[in-house]
Amino acid sequence: MRQAILKLEESRIREVANAGMGRADVLPFWFGESDEVTPEAIRQAGIASLQAGETFYSHNLGLPVLREELSRYMSSLHGPISTDRLAVTSGGVSALFVAMQTLVDAGDEVVAVTPVWPNLTAQPLILGAKLRCVALAPDEEGVWRLDVPGLLAAITPETRLLIVNSPNNPTGWTLSRAEQQQILDHCRQTGTWILSDEVYERLYYAGDTPDGAAPSFLDLARPEDRLVVVQSFSKSFLMTGWRLGWLVMPPAMTPQVGKLLEFNTSCAPVFVQRAALAAMQSQEAITPAVVAHLKKCRDTLVPLLKGLPGVKTSLAPGGMYAFLRIEGHDDSLELAKRLVAEAGLGLAPGVAFAPEAEGWLRWCFASKDITRLEEGVRRLSRWLAELALTQPR
Amino acid sequence: MRQAILKLEESRIREVANAGMGRADVLPFWFGESDEVTPEAIRQAGIASLQAGETFYSHNLGLPVLREELSRYMSSLHGPISTDRLAVTSGGVSALFVAMQTLVDAGDEVVAVTPVWPNLTAQPLILGAKLRCVALAPDEEGVWRLDVPGLLAAITPETRLLIVNSPNNPTGWTLSRAEQQQILDHCRQTGTWILSDEVYERLYYAGDTPDGAAPSFLDLARPEDRLVVVQSFSKSFLMTGWRLGWLVMPPAMTPQVGKLLEFNTSCAPVFVQRAALAAMQSQEAITPAVVAHLKKCRDTLVPLLKGLPGVKTSLAPGGMYAFLRIEGHDDSLELAKRLVAEAGLGLAPGVAFAPEAEGWLRWCFASKDITRLEEGVRRLSRWLAELALTQPR
Repeated sequence: MRQAILKLEESRIREVANAGMGRADVLPFWFGESDEVTPEAIRQAGIASLQAGETFYSHNLGLPVLREELSRYMSSLHGPISTDRLAVTSGGVSALFVAMQTLVDAGDEVVAVTPVWPNLTAQPLILGAKLRCVALAPDEEGVWRLDVPGLLAAITPETRLLIVNSPNNPTGWTLSRAEQQQILDHCRQTGTWILSDEVYERLYYAGDTPDGAAPSFLDLARPEDRLVVVQSFSKSFLMTGWRLGWLVMPPAMTPQVGKLLEFNTSCAPVFVQRAALAAMQSQEAITPAVVAHLKKCRDTLVPLLKGLPGVKTSLAPGGMYAFLRIEGHDDSLELAKRLVAEAGLGLAPGVAFAPEAEGWLRWCFASKDITRLEEGVRRLSRWLAELALTQPR
Repeated sequence: MRQAILKLEESRIREVANAGMGRADVLPFWFGESDEVTPEAIRQAGIASLQAGETFYSHNLGLPVLREELSRYMSSLHGPISTDRLAVTSGGVSALFVAMQTLVDAGDEVVAVTPVWPNLTAQPLILGAKLRCVALAPDEEGVWRLDVPGLLAAITPETRLLIVNSPNNPTGWTLSRAEQQQILDHCRQTGTWILSDEVYERLYYAGDTPDGAAPSFLDLARPEDRLVVVQSFSKSFLMTGWRLGWLVMPPAMTPQVGKLLEFNTSCAPVFVQRAALAAMQSQEAITPAVVAHLKKCRDTLVPLLKGLPGVKTSLAPGGMYAFLRIEGHDDSLELAKRLVAEAGLGLAPGVAFAPEAEGWLRWCFASKDITRLEEGVRRLSRWLAELALTQPR
């Protein structure tokens, strides 16, 4: 077997979850997923397709009718995005990997902004690329920030690809439009492709953009720019388990991605695409409600966490995570396992996302029932209080 | 974009199909897919799962209950195959690609037996491997055969991976048990991994094995051998559009594949896996009937083709294709396009599968209605007759 694969880290999130799986007394907030079932109308469209017998192979790039609907949807957010720039993929993760397969040769240099969902940094390593990470850093208030000049200095003409995820999983950090413009300008100079994972774009709470969505590179770039944007049905439409995403890219890249989709997964199931079509068609009924609820989740959880002794966190402008640090606990994997065992609380360890996130914990606040979040905070509070009693500070 | 990707051939099958798509007067036999809808019991299991709200992320390696069922199924065919050797994947094509990602570094040498489904030879090129093809050859009767000594001579200690597909798409060629033993013995000596695509194992008509399935490397190998077998629900259970397959591998490889599945597609949808579980549980009602019908299709089509002037073909022992040659027509892509345009008959061009299959055509005989095959032959017959009138021989 390949050394590159043997050396890939297993998910530290799974390591914590496995330690608590099947334990009814653990409240899990470890995965990046809402606990809400996909809306009825979406599931019914999938069911109707299965009943109609749509069980055959389909187009590599996705059903034409779905690509047209995606074109309308993306155009409404970002200005004209034509159908020939779109490909439907088997999940956002497949979209990311197919994009990298198109762009990254073994030995190529890739720069990634971290902490980030570990899949984004694992994929270039599978392809044999040289990975260089540029770290965000938290300020005194626990708000994570990008040193833009530092990032730009790391991107040279040798850099094949920049990987960036904003709104960011796990920190909630979100690029401003001005920062995106600086990065785009620089990458145009160096000839570097930008792979922008924007799956959380609708889960944005700052209220400083006309359409409510987070700033996107698509708002600034020309169709021919070396820019690939990854999207997913998972977050905005509560469709994680369906495994459906899409890519926006320059028109000349689309046929290449079509070939690669054939060799990766061939196509997404038609009944899944029919469900996605229903999601698109009822998005005005679904997504704003999802976002409003998530904002309520965030605004319930974060102030409670800030009220706990020794806890540092901040209101994330985007995403569905609180990212927090507990004073005196520097080993996040050990801490997360202790919280499972001793507090019945399931969080993801920061070290899963990058070394610089060691000591931090990710709490997914996408909870249908907000009292679950409150109960989680009570558990953490009790655990901290008991610890304070047994351990002299 | 990468040269390796730009140079990948677009599917020549799609090229022919695109030329005839949407034309109601074309009888299509170009894709490797039955025209029969997935059986009701399987679809209902998927529907029930969607109704129950199973729309969340799941295990990377597949639902434990499905892996257990697959272990029982594979053990019934090949002797004990434990659950820790199994991974569920998003289609057979994803199984193949994940296996190659585990084993093949850029620059590694890969040997493939061709003609073969083009995905099998495209995947190592995506990974930057050096590909060497060993060609089957047709005898006087149109039966394709492997020069085993020639293959063994091509596999050296430098060969990282051997890719072989038997029963073979497109030729129907099927390895004998003795040939498999020779190949396995040789690869043990050279340290070469065998990636065996056995998705057509149940579609075997020779009747010379105890369980009716085609000879499998699994019947001969030890669990620790460097052997990976790819399987799929597509053919034996009429589930092409569901995109579900599985891998059998040495136990030590399974955790590595688990990591890679996370980075490829994360997991297969639970409702798709529930449908597959129903397929497994009713396989005795489904697969033998599928196989008996396909044998009838083959035994209808091939003798009719043999009766046409200038047509050479043979009864394939396995698979779901007739592979034929029409005397005087050496450009299979041009011929396939002419047959679409002039005869209303949709076949796949041999050149799509390897240069040595140039001049041949693939006819998928998986037709629910056998009279469709007869009508196809009538169209070919008429076209040949008209051609004979207009062109002096």
